Amino acid sequence: MPQAVAGPEIERLIQLLGRMPGLGPRSARRAALQLIKKRETLLAPLADAMRVAAERIVVCRSCGNVDTSDPCTICRDETRDPTTLVVVEDVSDLWALERSGAVKARYHVLGGVLSALDGVRPEHLTIARLVERAGEPGVKEIILALNATVDGQTTAHYVTESIKPFGLTVTRLAHGVPVGGELDYLDEGTLTAAIRSRTAF
Amino acid sequence: MPQAVAGPEIERLIQLLGRMPGLGPRSARRAALQLIKKRETLLAPLADAMRVAAERIVVCRSCGNVDTSDPCTICRDETRDPTTLVVVEDVSDLWALERSGAVKARYHVLGGVLSALDGVRPEHLTIARLVERAGEPGVKEIILALNATVDGQTTAHYVTESIKPFGLTVTRLAHGVPVGGELDYLDEGTLTAAIRSRTAF
Repeated sequence: MPQAVAGPEIERLIQLLGRMPGLGPRSARRAALQLIKKRETLLAPLADAMRVAAERIVVCRSCGNVDTSDPCTICRDETRDPTTLVVVEDVSDLWALERSGAVKARYHVLGGVLSALDGVRPEHLTIARLVERAGEPGVKEIILALNATVDGQTTAHYVTESIKPFGLTVTRLAHGVPVGGELDYLDEGTLTAAIRSRTAF
Repeated sequence: MPQAVAGPEIERLIQLLGRMPGLGPRSARRAALQLIKKRETLLAPLADAMRVAAERIVVCRSCGNVDTSDPCTICRDETRDPTTLVVVEDVSDLWALERSGAVKARYHVLGGVLSALDGVRPEHLTIARLVERAGEPGVKEIILALNATVDGQTTAHYVTESIKPFGLTVTRLAHGVPVGGELDYLDEGTLTAAIRSRTAF
């Protein structure tokens, strides 16, 4: 174990920074030093922003998004299409879809995907709440925006079965060539899917 | 510019995290989400640690180290060799040397190196303070632990000239093959230096 080279306050800062995703012990030291050098412009504002976030951010009880209000800004947004629910695995997927601006509907964050290997079962996810929401009057379509992985697709099937009684339209994201992608680098599965779902030009 | 996808508190956290070294806009979003998920175990403690650091960390007026006391813990450490001063470019170099445990003396942090290109002149560094310290009674050796770059070596020469009047022993770090290093990957300059400074086996 490396020796402590600075006071306990700095060591604690380095240790906590090292637990952030994307930072290891070495980059945490560099980050700590940089923060200390930019005390007024970065360290103090970041400490405040984190304090505010720790105190005020809540998980939306309706959709599972994180925000400073419950229900969250998206759930309260009256301009969004009330007939559609977009089911995502994680808040990061919700953010990605919002950045794209591709859909202006409400979301449902599952909080993970089913995984026999990792022992994630339906009761660990917010599937029960999704079934409740799917049964609300006015909801017509469920878009399954789950990752195109085995676990993601297993979850998609499970969700589809769970909401079958409501007779809603259930759709999933299209498979195909990513925009800007080169065929040469794509796997056979993607190419097969892209050929099968080819569209008129 | 990507659209804001979360409340202003979260956006501000992401924006500030993105200014940390080692984190870009994308990894800042991932880090923010991770922090929010680990609110009790990571976000709140990190906010506190940053607040404490912002309030209490000072630069040692004697050596330029960062610590919560001035003079710093190292300068106040009576067990350290008072005859030797180790001159380093930055606090990170001081930390690196302390981790190695190779020397138990006091340090002097220059705060940078001379650079005609970047307009760094002697008065921008703590060279005047180093000359003062070198003149204190009891000091016998100055170890120049500066980076083996052109700017580092220029600075080493300048420092040596500045403290010449005191007639101290001035040494620099040895050049050679890094421990664990392979000859095949080393540049000619390092190999030449390693051959020249070869030692009895």
